[in-house]
This record gives sequence, structure tokens and C-alpha cells, in this order.
Amino acid sequence: MPNPTLKAGVVGGTGYTGAELLRLLSAHPSVTVTAVTSRAEAGQPVASLLPALRGVVELAFTNPEKADLADCDVVLFATPNGVAMHQAAALLAAGVRVIDLAADFRLRDPAVWAEWYGEAHAAPELLGEAVYGLTEWHRPKLVDARLVANPGCYPTAVQMGLAPLLEAGAITVDGIIADAKSGVSGAGRKAATGLLMGEVGESFKAYGVAGHRHLPEIRQGLAAVAGRDPELTFVPHLVPMVRGIEATLYARATDPGTDFQALFETRYRDEPFVDVLPPGTFPETRNVRGTNQCQIAVARPQEGSTVVVSVVIDNLVKGAAGQAVQNMNAIFGLPETTGLEAAPVWP
Amino acid sequence: MPNPTLKAGVVGGTGYTGAELLRLLSAHPSVTVTAVTSRAEAGQPVASLLPALRGVVELAFTNPEKADLADCDVVLFATPNGVAMHQAAALLAAGVRVIDLAADFRLRDPAVWAEWYGEAHAAPELLGEAVYGLTEWHRPKLVDARLVANPGCYPTAVQMGLAPLLEAGAITVDGIIADAKSGVSGAGRKAATGLLMGEVGESFKAYGVAGHRHLPEIRQGLAAVAGRDPELTFVPHLVPMVRGIEATLYARATDPGTDFQALFETRYRDEPFVDVLPPGTFPETRNVRGTNQCQIAVARPQEGSTVVVSVVIDNLVKGAAGQAVQNMNAIFGLPETTGLEAAPVWP
Amino acid sequence: MPNPTLKAGVVGGTGYTGAELLRLLSAHPSVTVTAVTSRAEAGQPVASLLPALRGVVELAFTNPEKADLADCDVVLFATPNGVAMHQAAALLAAGVRVIDLAADFRLRDPAVWAEWYGEAHAAPELLGEAVYGLTEWHRPKLVDARLVANPGCYPTAVQMGLAPLLEAGAITVDGIIADAKSGVSGAGRKAATGLLMGEVGESFKAYGVAGHRHLPEIRQGLAAVAGRDPELTFVPHLVPMVRGIEATLYARATDPGTDFQALFETRYRDEPFVDVLPPGTFPETRNVRGTNQCQIAVARPQEGSTVVVSVVIDNLVKGAAGQAVQNMNAIFGLPETTGLEAAPVWP
Amino acid sequence: MPNPTLKAGVVGGTGYTGAELLRLLSAHPSVTVTAVTSRAEAGQPVASLLPALRGVVELAFTNPEKADLADCDVVLFATPNGVAMHQAAALLAAGVRVIDLAADFRLRDPAVWAEWYGEAHAAPELLGEAVYGLTEWHRPKLVDARLVANPGCYPTAVQMGLAPLLEAGAITVDGIIADAKSGVSGAGRKAATGLLMGEVGESFKAYGVAGHRHLPEIRQGLAAVAGRDPELTFVPHLVPMVRGIEATLYARATDPGTDFQALFETRYRDEPFVDVLPPGTFPETRNVRGTNQCQIAVARPQEGSTVVVSVVIDNLVKGAAGQAVQNMNAIFGLPETTGLEAAPVWP
Repeated sequence: MPNPTLKAGVVGGTGYTGAELLRLLSAHPSVTVTAVTSRAEAGQPVASLLPALRGVVELAFTNPEKADLADCDVVLFATPNGVAMHQAAALLAAGVRVIDLAADFRLRDPAVWAEWYGEAHAAPELLGEAVYGLTEWHRPKLVDARLVANPGCYPTAVQMGLAPLLEAGAITVDGIIADAKSGVSGAGRKAATGLLMGEVGESFKAYGVAGHRHLPEIRQGLAAVAGRDPELTFVPHLVPMVRGIEATLYARATDPGTDFQALFETRYRDEPFVDVLPPGTFPETRNVRGTNQCQIAVARPQEGSTVVVSVVIDNLVKGAAGQAVQNMNAIFGLPETTGLEAAPVWP
Repeated sequence: MPNPTLKAGVVGGTGYTGAELLRLLSAHPSVTVTAVTSRAEAGQPVASLLPALRGVVELAFTNPEKADLADCDVVLFATPNGVAMHQAAALLAAGVRVIDLAADFRLRDPAVWAEWYGEAHAAPELLGEAVYGLTEWHRPKLVDARLVANPGCYPTAVQMGLAPLLEAGAITVDGIIADAKSGVSGAGRKAATGLLMGEVGESFKAYGVAGHRHLPEIRQGLAAVAGRDPELTFVPHLVPMVRGIEATLYARATDPGTDFQALFETRYRDEPFVDVLPPGTFPETRNVRGTNQCQIAVARPQEGSTVVVSVVIDNLVKGAAGQAVQNMNAIFGLPETTGLEAAPVWP
Repeated sequence: MPNPTLKAGVVGGTGYTGAELLRLLSAHPSVTVTAVTSRAEAGQPVASLLPALRGVVELAFTNPEKADLADCDVVLFATPNGVAMHQAAALLAAGVRVIDLAADFRLRDPAVWAEWYGEAHAAPELLGEAVYGLTEWHRPKLVDARLVANPGCYPTAVQMGLAPLLEAGAITVDGIIADAKSGVSGAGRKAATGLLMGEVGESFKAYGVAGHRHLPEIRQGLAAVAGRDPELTFVPHLVPMVRGIEATLYARATDPGTDFQALFETRYRDEPFVDVLPPGTFPETRNVRGTNQCQIAVARPQEGSTVVVSVVIDNLVKGAAGQAVQNMNAIFGLPETTGLEAAPVWP
Repeated sequence: MPNPTLKAGVVGGTGYTGAELLRLLSAHPSVTVTAVTSRAEAGQPVASLLPALRGVVELAFTNPEKADLADCDVVLFATPNGVAMHQAAALLAAGVRVIDLAADFRLRDPAVWAEWYGEAHAAPELLGEAVYGLTEWHRPKLVDARLVANPGCYPTAVQMGLAPLLEAGAITVDGIIADAKSGVSGAGRKAATGLLMGEVGESFKAYGVAGHRHLPEIRQGLAAVAGRDPELTFVPHLVPMVRGIEATLYARATDPGTDFQALFETRYRDEPFVDVLPPGTFPETRNVRGTNQCQIAVARPQEGSTVVVSVVIDNLVKGAAGQAVQNMNAIFGLPETTGLEAAPVWP
């Protein structure tokens, strides 16, 4: 039996990331979701809270304390930051693979984690083992990994666009700019005035300029590729739409003669989820909506020394639940595209 | 071989309906799309015009004159009104099944067609044979049908909500109100000032009050169920969103004691694409986005004599391409849900 | 000095209605806002919370207990329901005119109020005196009124469209339908999951079908005009936009020969804020954005017996703060248009 | 009589910029609009085409050939590029002041104009006289100017943010990045598929990366301030909203010790339309909607060497019609704020 059915548990199934996991896993041919937990909604059918999943998910939410997560092959955490770090060790000890979609295991240095997330890390001993799940860049470590730190949405978009350039030494590590724009679902499904449609509809703004939590994550990832800390300025922006991230990246070419188009095409040639667009075309977030695709374009405007890369992903798929499934596939030896092949809903 | 591969041709593949057909058919396990025609774009790869289909559709557009549509098992027309009526006869003669997503074969009376569409009907002799593809209401005729008139988006939503009531004699046929609201993709992908985001963004309006082309189609369908012409007022509205239709329907109960909830649940009990919501809940268009689902709620506010039904569909799926695939499945004896099982992309 | 400067106080200045009052009053030539209260934000400059008012409003929020509201000529309550009823009596006793933009004084029967608002009314003795501020319909009572109940947004739109027909006996009082649609700012600026852009963006839905609080208010107003209780079905809907209400109203003509266009034009001939559109055109919410205008169209589709009226207003202006200013003008003998003459921001 | 009434003509009154001019001029206490031209709509009342101006503008469109524009004190061109350059000389000869809201007189070098606009310039002899109307930077030349080239929307936002830094020598002229984002009204009101709400709703993209027509305009303006050509990368993006531009600007500080906040506050201290936000806050496009305001924030994230400036304007006001009125005020010696004092419509 080449594709035994995996038993998956989802912790925190009421938010956007959790719902997206349920959508993707329910269509996955090798997975059965056996438990979805929510403390607040225990006992309620999933579909009563998420009517989009009527007829798709038959489970009810269970109290996290009562869920038999230890019986799962894999547990995915779609919880706020600071939850998975308290529960991962016990699950790992029970032989369960853990994929955390929050930030708990993304930063290798617990001091940096504490600085940006405002509390001491509860499981620093696991940070060394956790594999950073930017799949295209950490695939060898993902095979049979026990604990995966699924990347943030902005970090996914930014690293997918900058890592090839840094890896090749094609840009200087100084003066890198990441101007990123996200739909509102990236901020989660929490009752906050600042996320009301009355506040963010028909408006656009930069935010988090002084320092966004995704900055140390991006820096850590790029440093690993570049061999030293990049000097990166990262400014996120909020777009009046629900889904999608676009990141426009600016860096200085070390050699303007570099064929940047070929560099990207070569690096991502065999990647099913990365699509380097033809020269002269630029990606739109809607073209990857609902999919795990990452579309990338590169240009050197006016034949100058500045390289411009535009990357789009769906923040809830390649930026969250889709990449988690991709990582799960990698862990269990399944083709990475399993369950992730649906075309975008367009327009 | 239970599910032989069907060869399908799509005529007019550059609009929203055509693109949606390509999305759905490319994921259909029993279909191979062998030709996509576009006079204007002949020779261009489909994916160059529709980058959302990169990696999904490998075909190029072909000139309609040169496409070997007669070799297809089924040809779907995603063309403007008035195209399919010129080409259907030849295809039918060649043994090809034809599904028209435009209005050419929806009205049985060529005089009514001429009145609402402004030109004489080119193939009145086919009107008698054409099966009106509101699947849940015309299933027996669809089995092995040669020519299907796929319903309009508004008519689908309105009839799904009113037909059960009229069929049961549970409402009077006088004074029926259909207040329908659609996202902008329902108007197609034509360069028209009135459809610019600068015109329809952040605004809402009624339109077509004097008489929308979908009115005679709805009337004809309801008359068939009711046994006589209903007195129907239909007012469409434009919503500042891309996809989705909601229709709120108002009618007078013949007997307020009727259990309307049970009436709907019974009528649609075995329908995979119709979901009658629990009492007290109401549907949202996003919960059916990208799917062939129709969600329906019924209420009798303040225990009065007015019955209120709220119906949502995705105008491009159940209101167009999805229902066409559902009809295609019915024609060829496939389970109707084949290729139409993906969950909505939510939020 | 014909237009002495009025001293106005705004209670509850941090929500959408309060901000809109501040925008309008700051441009009013005969008003000086002397106090804006907010318990939560006391001490903060208004413009630090509402950066749109930087350079426009120089005041800081004051604690309601410390504000010298009794020194004002008029106090406008932009508070949640149930606040003004506790404070109005003292202000009235001090000779201050009170305009409540919430629901406290809209319903004449305290029992009905208690039923729909879930608590006993705190000032039933004032209900008889309160003037319902649908200006065009209660103008004589507004002159020198002490206490004004400013209408709700939906009730304003619905009554402006139905009252002329009922007043003239041109429609039956049975089977009236009000299908109303509102942008999200109508729900206020409260942190609620259901109002997140992730929830209401790119989606449309009916809500409150079983009974919305604006229903008894509309019924009471229409009964006063019709002479008896109308049988009204009112269904509100949420539109993915920030501002604007459209109400499509359906009723049965008592005499189809009535010239409905003339009826509306005559009734509203001298009204500066009511604009009856030419036959065949229909209003769009954007055309009244930011203004106190009400645009109305009437039609009798297919020369049938159903009259259709489409009404648009800006829910925060004619549906709230603008009508409050209009009422204030009426109270103090100013031309009603004073401070309300700016054209819409379009598109 | 200190403020004699100016007679103003608007050429091209059917687009977004023309409509915005009409909105602003109709509220201007010293201006009477005496003619609005439109070849296509000659004879039609303005308000029939622009129902938002019902009751505001009573004029009908006149054929440009028949309009007595020579009798005007000032004529404002809200036409496509390449129109004003054919008509300006005759108007100037008649003593009329001309303000072109299109690009005809923005570039001083006719060869550069021809390169970017695809035709020879029709009035190169006027380029030397034309004053570039970025008011805050060219005020002395505007007093009594005959011909004003009103800046583009992106160039206004970008220059307002970068010019203070270059003027002060506080940033290097190399490696400047302008990442700009605009609502769809910036592209005008032309029937183009790419501007349909079905195309741009719920999506975000970069465009014009290879070279946007606003690039040479920005470069020319910044070179004048910097004393030499800056090395600038300009990438515009399309936001799914109607109005507003945000530009995030990145440059390298020559001396990180510079007090950038003070630099901006000092430069714009006396400017009524420029608002430098307090440290730590960032602007939102909605806070300037419908107004001529420009809100600016500056930061130096992580105390690095990169300065980040975020600028917001309303593309149709400070980015077009509002700045044109501001320039007109300057020409005729009126206070610049005349007619431009309305607060933003928020939210």
C-alpha cells in the first residue's frame, strides 16, 4: 500500500489558517482528519461554525484536552503564537509529527524569540531540531522531519524572491528592500477594530515600519543563504482585499551583466509550486488565489543596477496551510503536490 | 471502461465563463479538452492570456474555423449571445453534444427570443429539442440530451428558490418578488465603462428594472412548474464584488401553516449541489465561492403571510460553467458531482 | 447677528457616527463644537484617534462626567443605544436641546422598546415629547423641538420611499416588501468578528430576517402616514462596501393608472435633500456619498401592478449625522441646508 | 473687490479628473465655471452624465469648438495627453491662463516627451514658460504664471516625500526606491478590460516596471532639487480601491544622525496641505480622501542607514484636480486653501 492513510489532527480549527487546512486536507487523498480542536467551540460541528465546509467536514470540534492527538500521525497547529511550544514535546514523544503554522519554532535563537514575541520560549530544547519549512529551500531536512516550523506568509514571499539572488551572490547583502503588501486575512480572524471592513476597506497603508515580527524570521533565513546577515528593510502594507500577498523586492546587482531571468528559471526549474514568469510580465495575486503556487518575475529597470523582483502567493496557502501540506507530504514521502493541484479560482 | 475519456471543445475561451470551464474541465477525471477557440487570440497559448491557468492548460487557442470541433464528444459554447445558434446544427449533425452557456436556446418561443435579444433566431427548429439545463428540475430530459441550454445565472438562483414553492402550490403565483444581487463577473469580461472598478467599486445600485433579459427565462421556467404564468417582479442589483449571486425572494403563502423548511428539505433531499440551511441561518455568497453549490434558507418573518427565501450561488459555477459540467455529466451518464467536488475557497 | 454661533456638544465621538458629526459640524458656519466626550479616550486629542480630522478638530475628548454639556445649546448623542435615555432629562432641564442619533427615543411605546432593545426604558416620560426627526415628514414639530429622535439609517431610506405612496393611498398597506442593502459602516465601529473585512469582503448576505430592530421603527412611521399598521416585510443585507444604503421597495398599486413619477416629484418638490430621478434612471449609492442627499427612482415594471421604488442615501449622513444636523438647523431656525451643501466625493 | 469672480472653463469634463474639477470649482467662492466641454457629450447636461453633480452643476457640455473659452480667465484641461498642447497657445494669446492636468507641459525636453508619449510635441516653444505646478516647490513661479503643467499623481506623491531629503542632502542620490500604489481611478475612466472590477477587484499587482511615463517626470523634478540626476527605481502598483495613492520611499541616509522628523517638519511647517505625522504613526489613504492634503511619515527602521518615507494623497485631488485649484489660487493671488478646505469623507 504505497499511500497509507495518514491520520491528521488540526489544533485550532476556527481561524482562517485552520479552515484552510481543513479545506486542503479534506481533499487530500492520503489523509484523514481525525480531530479538530477548539476550546471555545468544543462539541459544535465544524460546519456550523464554518458553513463553507458543510458537506465537506463532518467532524465536530473537540476540546484540546480530550482529543486523542497522540493517535495521529501528524498534528498541525493553526493556533496563535505561543501555543504549540507547550504541546509539541508531548506529541513528539508519542511519535507524532508536528507542524506548527504559528511562529513558535521559526526562530532558532530563543532570546530573539523572547524579544519579538514578548515571553520566554517554553521549549527552547526543540529549536535545534525544528526544520524551517520553506520547502524549496530545506527539502532534504524535511524528509522524515519530526517537527516543522512552517514559515510566515511574508517571510515565504520575501525569501522565495531574494534567496536565489543571495545564494548566487548576484546582489549585495546591503540595502535590500522588501516592500510587501497583504490582504487582510493575513492578520487572522480576531475581533480587532483595526481589521473591520469599515477601517480597511477602500484604504491602503504601511504598518509595522518600526519592526514587524516577520523581520527576524526573514533575516535569519536570508543569512543562512547569504552566509552573513543581510541589511534588510522590510515594510508591510495592508491591501483592501481578503487574500494574497505581493512582495516587491529591490536589491543592488553585483554584476549587472547577470542574466537574472535565467538565474531564477534555473533555480526553480524543477519546482512544481514556483512559476517564473516570462520576461516583461508581472504577477497578480488573483492568479494564485487558493493555490500553493508562487509566481515570480524579475526585471532590471532601465538597465540600471537595481534588480526588482515581484513575488505573489496566496497568504493562506503557500503562505500558511498549503505549504504545511506540502511539508507534510515531504515528511511522509508523498509527492509534494498531493492534494495541492487545484487551479486558482479566477477571477 | 466505465469512464471513457470525453473529448470536449470550448468555443470562446477568453471570457470569465470560458476560463471557468477550463478550470473545471482541466480537473475533470473523465474529460480531455481538445480544443479552445478564440478568433481574436488564435495561436496564443491559453495560459498567456489567462496566467491563472499556467501549468493547468497547455493548449493554444485555435481559430474557430480550423478547430476540429466535430471530433469532440461535447462542445461547450462560452460565447456571447447569438453565436451558438449559428453553429449548433452542424455540430449536432456530426454527432456532437452541444451545451450553450449563452442564451441562444433558453427561450422556447423564437418570437420572445427576438424581442429580448434584438435579432431573429437563427435556428428556431432546434428550440424544441433543446433541454433547459436547470439540472435539478430537468434531469430526466438531460440523460442523453443532444442540445442543452444552460440557464442564466440569475434564473438559476431565482428558480432554485421559487420552483419548490410553486410546484407545491405553497405560494400564490401573483405578486412574487425576486430581488437579486450579483457580483460584477456576471456581466462578462467586456471593455465597458460601466463595469470599471472606478464605477462599480464602493457602490451599489439596482439596474434593469424596466426589464432584464433574464426575466422571460425565469418566467418561462416558473410557468412550467406552476402550470400558469406567474406574476413576477425581478430587479437585479450590482454588488461591488467579483463573484456571487444572492437572490432574496418574496411570495405570499397560500397556507401559512405550511412547513416551508420541510418543503425545501424534502424537495432537495438527494441533491448533491443543493444545501438547505438550518432554520435561522442565512447563506453568504462566499460560502459557495468557486463551487457548484446552491445554499438556500427559508423563513416566514413575524409569522406573517410572506415567505422569504434567500438563495446563493457562484454565478460562474452553478450559474454558468459548473452547471454546464453538471449537465455534461448527466448527458454522459457520469455521476453529476464528477469534477465538481472541490470545497469553496474561503474566506 | 442673524446666525449666532451655537455651542454644540457631541457625546460619543469615537465611532463612525460621531466622527461624521464632527466632520459636518466643523464645517457648519453657525456652530462651534465645544465638547466631545469619550470615557475611554478622555484627554486624547480627537485628531490622534481620528487622524482624518487632523487640522479640522482641535479639541481633546473629555470625560462625560466632566464635560460642561449643560452649557451647550445642543447636545448630540452618537452613543450606543441605551445611553442618551439616562442623560437627556438633565440636559433638557438645563435648557439644552438634545438630538439622539441612537434608538432611545425613536419608539413611542416603551414596551416595544423594551422588547426590541432588551431592557426597560429609562425615560419613558420623554417619549411623548420626542420628535421623530425624519425631517421631510415631521418638519413642523421640529421647529423649536427640545428632544429629537434621529431616525435609523434603514428606516430613513425605507420611509422616504414608502411614505409618499402610503400618504397618497397609492399602494395597499398589505404585502409591502423592503429589501434593503447597507455598507458595513452601518453596523458601527465595534470590534466584532462578523464585521472583519476577512468576513464581509467579497461576499454578500441577508441577515436579520427574523426581525431587525429597525422593523418596529419603520412600522411605526409608516403606520402614522397610512393610518393603520402596514404589513411590511423588511430584509436587510450587508454589502461589501463602507458607506451607502440602497433600499428596493415593492408594493401593490391601488390604481395602476397612478402617475407615480409625478406623485414623488410633487411630494418632494421643495425638498433640498430629496432628488427624484428622471424616469428610466436608477440611483447609485456613490452618487450621494458623503452628502445628505436622498435619491429616489420609481417604476412600474412591465406595466404590472407592482410599484418598485429604489432609494439611496449615505447611511452616515442622511441616515445619521447629516439628518441630525438638518434637524438641528430646523430646531434653531437655520436654513436646513446650512453646513450640508458639499457635493459627493465621486467616484 | 478683493476676490473678483473668476470665469473658469473645463475642457474634458466627463472623466474622473474633470468631474473632480467640477466638484471643487462648484464649491469655490471666487470661481464661476462658465463652460465645460466634451465633444462626445455636447448638448447633454453635465448632471445627466454625472448624476453625482445633480443640483451642483447646472451647465450642459458644449462642443469644444463652440465654447467661448477665450472669454475665460482660466481654462483647465482634464483631457487625455496630447490635447492641451494643440490649444494652449491660442488661449494664452487671448490672455487666458491655462492649467493642464495632463502631461503635455510637464517635461521640459520635447525629445523626452516624444520618447515617452509617442509623438512629437506640438508646442515645444511653450515648454520653457510652463511652470511645473508642484505648488509647495514652485510657488514663486506660480504667482501670475500663464501656463501651468499640473503634476501627475504618482510624481506628486513621490516628490513630496523625496524632495525635502534631496534638497537637504540628507540622502544619497543613488539607489532611491519609490514603491507606489494607486487606486484604480488613477488610470482614468476609459473602457479598458484591464480596469474592469472583474480584473482588478480582490487582486494586487505591480505594473509598468520596465518604465512608467511618470518616471521621467519624477526624475526631472528630483534632479532640479538634487542638482543632478538621481538614480531612481519607480514601481507602481494597482490597489483594489477607487481613490488614493500611497508611496513608500526608500533612500540611504548620508548621515544617520540626521533628525529626519525635524527635517520634514521644518520644510513643510507653513504648508496648509502638508501634514507631517507624529513619529511612530503612518498615514492611510482614507484619511485624505477627497481632500488636497498630503500626509507624510518618516522613519529609520532599526536605526539603520535606510530612510523610509510613506506619503499618501488622494490621486484625484492633490494628485490632480485639487492641486490644479491650488495652483489656480496661487496664480490669481487667492489664499491657496480657497475652496479646498473640506475635511475628508471618512471612513
